[in-house]
Amino acid sequence: MAYIDLQNDLPGIRGPMIFRPETGTILNELAEVLLHQENNSLSRGDREMIGAYVSSLNDCFFCHHVHGAMAQYYYQCDTALIDQIKADFYSAPISPKMKSLLTIAASVQQGGKKVTPGQIEEARKLGATDLEIHDTVLIAAAFCMFNRYVDGLNTWAPQDRQIYIDRAPMRAREGYSQAGLVK
Amino acid sequence: MAYIDLQNDLPGIRGPMIFRPETGTILNELAEVLLHQENNSLSRGDREMIGAYVSSLNDCFFCHHVHGAMAQYYYQCDTALIDQIKADFYSAPISPKMKSLLTIAASVQQGGKKVTPGQIEEARKLGATDLEIHDTVLIAAAFCMFNRYVDGLNTWAPQDRQIYIDRAPMRAREGYSQAGLVK
Repeated sequence: MAYIDLQNDLPGIRGPMIFRPETGTILNELAEVLLHQENNSLSRGDREMIGAYVSSLNDCFFCHHVHGAMAQYYYQCDTALIDQIKADFYSAPISPKMKSLLTIAASVQQGGKKVTPGQIEEARKLGATDLEIHDTVLIAAAFCMFNRYVDGLNTWAPQDRQIYIDRAPMRAREGYSQAGLVK
Repeated sequence: MAYIDLQNDLPGIRGPMIFRPETGTILNELAEVLLHQENNSLSRGDREMIGAYVSSLNDCFFCHHVHGAMAQYYYQCDTALIDQIKADFYSAPISPKMKSLLTIAASVQQGGKKVTPGQIEEARKLGATDLEIHDTVLIAAAFCMFNRYVDGLNTWAPQDRQIYIDRAPMRAREGYSQAGLVK
């Protein structure tokens, strides 16, 4: 049960977003621009995967299942690939460039100063642009916020993974702009 | 020097905010609502101090000096009090309620799951409302994002503390809505 009375029974981040719509709206806009907006050379699948991976490192059950399911939907893959990327992306069948971005995201999860010049150089060598590196850092940083918000308030999360998978197509269609604010 | 070409020479978070105004605008709005908006039972000084304290724990030079200077301005105190709160708030002459909120913020900085029911109970006993606890958690979580964004991109920061102190009255007057986006 959440540590505060959220005055609703929505799971995960949606509970506190409805409780405090002034900030909920802004957090959804941030997710919309970073994860869902089309004019981005990183695919929606890759951006969702970066968020899912960081959420997994932060052990945030709600976020890593929501965004893992989103990545799975965009990638049109099975859950095994998502699990493999979360557990050991070096061994997963994804591009070297995506591996270099996940390496940067993992450093950001530990702390901003953990990102190294060598990691940036490697990503650039593999084709990452400045904007892609920027967005990788900001997505990883944003999930360090989302995850702490969700777990710091001790919100509840559905345990059945299928629920997250079933909701993904709707979220992909509608985006995040009003996601948490519609009951 | 920043890891990517930000196409401007602004310090700290202001560089990447100008580089990517679509997200910069949203991040500023978040700071505006959490730190500057008036209709909040937590004082501006206390909200800035929570941000400065978390930034100090994350060792983010730019953020902990910007927001430490903001807290100092609102508190109308000297730098010694700000430094004492950052170094050991238990010994500082601040209210027991503020100490209980900084305790929660310190847990959030480590990870959402580090917040304990006992910490929440203590804050509530000392008069904290659900909304104040919510905002404390979200401010602490948001600074875990801001700090990682600033340091993950290796932005530069003025080393002279007085620069931060001199800018604080202007920022207090104008707020954050367009803060990073005006050169």
